Amino acid sequence: MPDINHMTPDDFRRLGYQMVDRIADYWSTLQHQPGSVPVSSVVIPGEIYAKLPASAPEEGEAWDAILADLDRVVMPGITHWQHPSFFGYFSANNSGPSVLAELFSAGLGVQGMLWATSPAVTEVEMRVMDWLGRAIGLPEAFLFGETPLASSGGGVIQGTASEAALVAMVAARQRATQGGAAGPLVVYTSTQAHSSIAKSAAVAGIAHSTHDPERVRLIDVDNELAMRPDALAREMRADIAAGRVPLLVAATVGTTSTTAVDSIEAIAHELDRLNAPVRPWLHVDAAHAGAALVCPEFRWLSQGVERADSFCFNPHKWLLTNFDCDCFWTRDRAALVSAMSITPEYLRNAASSAGVIDYRDWQVPLGRRFRSLKLWFVLRHYGLEGLRAYIREHVRLAAAFEALVRADDRFEVVTRRTMNLVCIALRAAPGESLDHTNARTKALHRTLNASGTMLVTHTVLPNGRYVIRFAISGTYTREEHVVGAWNVVMRQADQLSA
Amino acid sequence: MPDINHMTPDDFRRLGYQMVDRIADYWSTLQHQPGSVPVSSVVIPGEIYAKLPASAPEEGEAWDAILADLDRVVMPGITHWQHPSFFGYFSANNSGPSVLAELFSAGLGVQGMLWATSPAVTEVEMRVMDWLGRAIGLPEAFLFGETPLASSGGGVIQGTASEAALVAMVAARQRATQGGAAGPLVVYTSTQAHSSIAKSAAVAGIAHSTHDPERVRLIDVDNELAMRPDALAREMRADIAAGRVPLLVAATVGTTSTTAVDSIEAIAHELDRLNAPVRPWLHVDAAHAGAALVCPEFRWLSQGVERADSFCFNPHKWLLTNFDCDCFWTRDRAALVSAMSITPEYLRNAASSAGVIDYRDWQVPLGRRFRSLKLWFVLRHYGLEGLRAYIREHVRLAAAFEALVRADDRFEVVTRRTMNLVCIALRAAPGESLDHTNARTKALHRTLNASGTMLVTHTVLPNGRYVIRFAISGTYTREEHVVGAWNVVMRQADQLSA
Repeated sequence: MPDINHMTPDDFRRLGYQMVDRIADYWSTLQHQPGSVPVSSVVIPGEIYAKLPASAPEEGEAWDAILADLDRVVMPGITHWQHPSFFGYFSANNSGPSVLAELFSAGLGVQGMLWATSPAVTEVEMRVMDWLGRAIGLPEAFLFGETPLASSGGGVIQGTASEAALVAMVAARQRATQGGAAGPLVVYTSTQAHSSIAKSAAVAGIAHSTHDPERVRLIDVDNELAMRPDALAREMRADIAAGRVPLLVAATVGTTSTTAVDSIEAIAHELDRLNAPVRPWLHVDAAHAGAALVCPEFRWLSQGVERADSFCFNPHKWLLTNFDCDCFWTRDRAALVSAMSITPEYLRNAASSAGVIDYRDWQVPLGRRFRSLKLWFVLRHYGLEGLRAYIREHVRLAAAFEALVRADDRFEVVTRRTMNLVCIALRAAPGESLDHTNARTKALHRTLNASGTMLVTHTVLPNGRYVIRFAISGTYTREEHVVGAWNVVMRQADQLSA
Repeated sequence: MPDINHMTPDDFRRLGYQMVDRIADYWSTLQHQPGSVPVSSVVIPGEIYAKLPASAPEEGEAWDAILADLDRVVMPGITHWQHPSFFGYFSANNSGPSVLAELFSAGLGVQGMLWATSPAVTEVEMRVMDWLGRAIGLPEAFLFGETPLASSGGGVIQGTASEAALVAMVAARQRATQGGAAGPLVVYTSTQAHSSIAKSAAVAGIAHSTHDPERVRLIDVDNELAMRPDALAREMRADIAAGRVPLLVAATVGTTSTTAVDSIEAIAHELDRLNAPVRPWLHVDAAHAGAALVCPEFRWLSQGVERADSFCFNPHKWLLTNFDCDCFWTRDRAALVSAMSITPEYLRNAASSAGVIDYRDWQVPLGRRFRSLKLWFVLRHYGLEGLRAYIREHVRLAAAFEALVRADDRFEVVTRRTMNLVCIALRAAPGESLDHTNARTKALHRTLNASGTMLVTHTVLPNGRYVIRFAISGTYTREEHVVGAWNVVMRQADQLSA
C-alpha cells in the first residue's frame, strides 16, 4: 500500500514560509513595480485549460512541480485584483492582517455551524458584528448588546450580498406568512439595483425567473439615479389593489453602476403610509458603500436606517478583509431563524436547547468557517481611526481624479460622485449622436484595458450613455496610480482623436 | 490624519512565518501530544463573549496584543476538529497542501465570478472538477471533457452540500417549468436524508416551511435505512394523480446518521417507469461518502449514477481539503444556467458574449474565490493512489474498531458499517426497556465527551434507538487513537455499570 504523504509539521513550516514569501514578493511587486505586471490577463478562452491534463495524477507529485505549474499555467491567467491600478467593478480588498487570519482559520479547521461545534466561532462573530455595527452607526436594535438572548436583533457573516438578499427575502416571507398575508409576493428595488436582488427572488421562488417584472418591480429612478419613493408607493398601492402582497423593498446605498444612493428615510416613510396588512420588509444593500459609514461624514448615506429591517455591506469590497465576508444585520432575527431552522437528531445538543445563538439558522448553508477572525484582526490592527483614514484617502483620491477629468473639456464626469467612484465619458461633439459618442468612449475603454496599465469597467446609464467607471479603492492605490491612470487616459484620448 | 498602518511586505513575511509556526506547532501538538488538548471546549455560553469588549478599538493595536488575545480568549473556546480523536459529526478535514493553497488564494485576492475577471480561476476549476469527477467514476456526461462548450454537463465548486441541493432544486424547477409542468411542486427524499434537503426546499419556496410534508415527502426506509423505491413510487404516483408535480428526488449516498446508502439505480428505475409529463430531477447527495468513490471497491455506492441529473460530495469532509469545498456536477447545466443567469450591463464583456463558462451562473452568490486551487494542490500532492490509501486506512480503522465493539457483549454495533462510521449502543439487558437502555447509552455518551479524550456525537434511529456515532476520518487519526478511544469507552462503561 502506498504511503499517505501527509506534510509533516516541519515540512509545513518550511513550505509555509515559502508560500508566505511568495505572497510577500507578489505584493511587493504590485506595490513597488506595478508597471511590471499587466493588470489584466491576456490569455484567450481555453488557453489555460489546454495546458492542464485531462486527469489527476495517479502518484503524488513533488511540491516544486506544483509550484512550477502555478507560475507557468496559473499566473498568466490571473487578472490582478490587488494591483494598485485595478479600478474595475468594485475592488475586493485584502490585507496582511486579514490574510493571516484566513490562514489561521484554515489551519484551525473548525466548524461554526452550531455554538456547540466550537463556541469561539460564534461568540467572536457576535462581538465583531456588534463592533462593526456600532462603527457604522447602526442602532442598538440591530446588535446583540450585553444581553444577546434578550435582544431581537443581531449580525451574522454571510458569503456575499447576494446571500444576504436571499436570507432577507426568506425572512420577509416568513414574517408575511405568519402575519396572514396571502397572494402573490412582490419585491421592489430600483432599475439601478444589483442583479442579485432579481436573482435571489428567482432562487427563492418569489419570481418565476431572473426577469419577472410582475414579481420583481424595478422602480424608476430620479436624475441622481436614486429610487423614486413616489413611484415605489404607486407600484405598491397598485399591487395591493390587485391582491398582491408587497413583500420586500431592497434599497441600495451605493449602486454598482454609479454609487447612487436611495433614500432609506423616504422609502421608509412610504412604507409607513402604506395601508398594507403586513408591512413590507425593508432591506438595505450597501454592499460597497457601507464601508464608508465608518466615517461620520458619510452617515448621510444611511439616514433612516433605524427604520430598516435588515442591512448588509461587504468588508470584502472596501474594508481590507479578503473575500468572502458580507456582514448582515437584522432587527428581526426571529423571522430569519424561524424560516431557516431545522434540527435533526444528529445536531441536537444541550447548549442549543438552552438557547445559544446557532448561526446555521441564520444562513442557507449548514457548515461555516471562522470568518469573524479576519474581521477581528482587521478591526484591531487598523483600529477605527485607521479604517477611517483608509476610506478618506480613497475618497480624496477620487476627488482629485474627478478634478483632473473636469479640467479637460474633452471629458465629462457623467454622474455625481458620492464617494470613491468616478464615472467618466467623452464629451459629445456638437451635433454628435449618442451612439457615436458612446462608440468613442467604448474605444477608449478598450485601449485603456489593452494598455495593461489599468483595469476599468463600464456601465450604461438609463439615458443610454456609455460610461467608464473608475472605482478607487485598492489597498495599495496611491495618488501616483490615480494620476498615472489619468495620464494614460489623456494620452489614449489624444491618439484616438488623432 | 492618522497613518494607514498597512503591513509592509517585509512585516507580512515576518508575521506570516510566525503564523505558519503557530499552525505547525498546533498540528504538531495534535499529532504528537493529543492528550494535552481536550477535544471539546468546556467554555459555557457567554464566557468568551464576556471577555471581549463591546466596541472596536479606535486606535490600531499591536500585533502581539491581538495574538495574545487569540491565545487567551479564542483558543479556550475552540473544539478541535483536527484532533485525531475527533469522531463527531463527519470530520472537516484539512491538510498542509490545502491550507497553503487557501493561503495563496487569499493572498492573490482575485475574483472568479466571470471567466473574464480572472480566467485561471474558471479554467483550473473546470479541469479539477473533471479530474475529480473521473476519479470518482462519474460518466463523461457530467464532465467538460476536451470540448467544454460542446458538453452539456460539467462541475462547479459550491460552498456546501446545502447550496448544491438548493441549486439542484432551482435547476429542476427551471426544467420542469420549461417542460410545461404546472401544479404544486414536490420534492422527495428519505426520512434519513440530511436536513439541508428540507431547508433548501423552504429557501427555494417549494415548501412553505422547513417542515412541510405536503411539499417535501420523507420516504420510508428499509431495514438498512435506505430509501424504499416502492414507497417513493407510490408517493409520486399519488401526487401526480392529485395534480401535483414530482420535481426532484434527492437520493442519499451515505446518510449523516448512519451512512446508509439509497440505491440510485432502483430510484432511477422508478423514475423511468413513472408516467410523468416531466421526468423528476434526480439529485445525489454523497456529501461525506463521495470521497470513498476514489476507490474502485466503493463504486457500488454510486451504482446507477449515470442516470442521475446531479451529484455532489464534499472534499471538505473526508478528502483533505479544508472547508469550504463542495463539488457539484450536473449533466444538464443549461437548466442551471438558464435559471440563474442575469447579466446587468456592468458585467457584460466580450468573452462572456463569446460563450465562455461564467461560474456565477452556476451558483447563488455572484462573487467567488479561487477554491479550485486547494483541490488542485491536494490532488497533485497526494495523487489518486495517495487519496485511495487515505480512505482505505480509515475504513480499515473503522473495521478494526467495529471488531473491538463486537467482541464486547455489553455493546452492539447497531447499524451496518458501510464505510468509516461505526454506530454503537449499549446492549439491552434482558427485559430492559428501550428508554432505559437509551438512558444508559446517553450517559455513556456524555461521559466520553466530558473525559476530554474524544468527541463523539449521536443519532436516534427510526426504531427509537439512541446510538453513539464514531466517524473515523480525521487527517491524523491513527490506530492508536481508535484503540485508545475504545479503551476509554470500555473503562467508562465499567464505571457506569459499577
